[in-house]
Amino acid sequence: MDTMMAIIQRYQHQRVTLVEAGATRHQSIFNGLKALAGDHTDIKLSTPTVVIIHDAVRPFVEEEVLMRVVTAAKDYGAAGAIRPLVSTVITPSADGCLDQSLERAKHRASEMPQAFLFDVIYRAYCQCSDHDMEFGTECLHLALKYGQTKAKLVEGSPDLWKVTYRRDLYAMESIIKDKISQQICVVTDTKKDAVCISFLQELLKKQLEVQGSSVTMCPNAQDLQKIFLGDCYNFVCINVHFLDSQNISLSDGMKELMEMKDFAKEVQKRNVFLYGVLIYFTQDDPQQLQEDIGQGATIIAALIKDRNAGLTGQLLRV
Amino acid sequence: MDTMMAIIQRYQHQRVTLVEAGATRHQSIFNGLKALAGDHTDIKLSTPTVVIIHDAVRPFVEEEVLMRVVTAAKDYGAAGAIRPLVSTVITPSADGCLDQSLERAKHRASEMPQAFLFDVIYRAYCQCSDHDMEFGTECLHLALKYGQTKAKLVEGSPDLWKVTYRRDLYAMESIIKDKISQQICVVTDTKKDAVCISFLQELLKKQLEVQGSSVTMCPNAQDLQKIFLGDCYNFVCINVHFLDSQNISLSDGMKELMEMKDFAKEVQKRNVFLYGVLIYFTQDDPQQLQEDIGQGATIIAALIKDRNAGLTGQLLRV
Repeated sequence: MDTMMAIIQRYQHQRVTLVEAGATRHQSIFNGLKALAGDHTDIKLSTPTVVIIHDAVRPFVEEEVLMRVVTAAKDYGAAGAIRPLVSTVITPSADGCLDQSLERAKHRASEMPQAFLFDVIYRAYCQCSDHDMEFGTECLHLALKYGQTKAKLVEGSPDLWKVTYRRDLYAMESIIKDKISQQICVVTDTKKDAVCISFLQELLKKQLEVQGSSVTMCPNAQDLQKIFLGDCYNFVCINVHFLDSQNISLSDGMKELMEMKDFAKEVQKRNVFLYGVLIYFTQDDPQQLQEDIGQGATIIAALIKDRNAGLTGQLLRV
Repeated sequence: MDTMMAIIQRYQHQRVTLVEAGATRHQSIFNGLKALAGDHTDIKLSTPTVVIIHDAVRPFVEEEVLMRVVTAAKDYGAAGAIRPLVSTVITPSADGCLDQSLERAKHRASEMPQAFLFDVIYRAYCQCSDHDMEFGTECLHLALKYGQTKAKLVEGSPDLWKVTYRRDLYAMESIIKDKISQQICVVTDTKKDAVCISFLQELLKKQLEVQGSSVTMCPNAQDLQKIFLGDCYNFVCINVHFLDSQNISLSDGMKELMEMKDFAKEVQKRNVFLYGVLIYFTQDDPQQLQEDIGQGATIIAALIKDRNAGLTGQLLRV
């Protein structure tokens, strides 16, 4: 409870009420429903017409799916998201042999979110047996068994899958990174190179199919910090330097790279991802510079596409 | 067929025979079985006692699971790997509503590999209907229906899952990276620092729980290439430099980093992953050097744990 409370306070959620979980999935859901029914003297909530039940282990639920299950629940009394089966489902016999195999096309995996008319699901929970409470997993089944309500099944998206195994965490990470890499922020430390920067930005947009792209002028990591910690959003940040001379020492580059790493660690705490690439363009010849920028854009695009995003700093020189 | 042939030749596989696929899963499997039965005049193969059927979309099959299904197939005539269900399975009615929900604990997902006495599965395929051939998905079901053979069900590992969605590719990548990061190869360019290197290696072993670790002396990427392209194995490569002076120019570092990137691209073609970190230790004071190596080891371990492995070069200076 303390952990959840800390998260709610940290992100300043205004409309979340915490209810203690039960020993099983169904007991936890029932506890939530009881709070909405006004059974808790210390929790004041109005009873809704429709209630949505969701799993925290399915973090990529979209508003559109929520709308569809809620609308269907209003019409049918209950509704839930489904997905096609990936594997054939079989029934084992007591001795561990195949008893029966189900025709895959005739069945579906029942996923979340599910929505119910509050009265339908609350009454189902009030009536259901101890065995259901302890061994059951399916809310739609309770609505059918105790509320005579046939749920409407709504096609869900592949991203609704249940994060279950270790590998699912990495799959999750990849989905987040995909979304992040559609937003790019080019950071530069000098005003005079506006033309070069917009050219670079244009090339990046072409190569990455980015949705958002912005430019910020900042001399150093401290200023960057001030800018980005104001709002909380994800972005890919590319540091670009246009220099007049070739005489940059390795230590200067390393110092900047380390600053970027420190900054990356800092912004991660605020749910901001940072991809830092330091690029030095040092040509004085305008024609050559344009070619170099083209090459730089290709390198950056490749790094981002390679999914090496995240908390890292990279030093490039074109 | 050309693509597969090219892969077989590239990796010099000696015991692979290609058979053309059919329009459905079952037709493809049947084609393979026919080739083993001697039905193809141009393919000369001896008929085996037991045959294993597997999906290429389940790349992480382990020898131990293969052993278990083969042993069970010898005893029972058929055997297949199973996994617990992650979602509840339901039956939709014709109008898209819930008709029935199955008790999750009483069912299993049927996965691959599966193994059969050759005669059992071959005769099942010879007898099975056009409808089975076109719409069926489950070999165990055919063995039961046409061979009266009740398959033994064998518990499979979570890594046997079917790579189906885009996210599964990233999950796959993460599993490969996990395995790779257990093998480390430290590359150094000078003999005189053997003590420093073995100290670094020791620290890395402690922090990463690596299974294998080796040291190679090489002056440059060309030599590295000669060494690693001989054998084909995955490794994490860390380039370490011990230098006498602080006067390294940025260009020197960048040149080496770019060489490493080129090399990384080259070795990827041979299924070798490379994680290049250039580290410069420049202290002359032995006590200070030891502290620096400790710091270097921590940075490397963090980078590898962050899963930023793959085709990348990183420049560090401790």
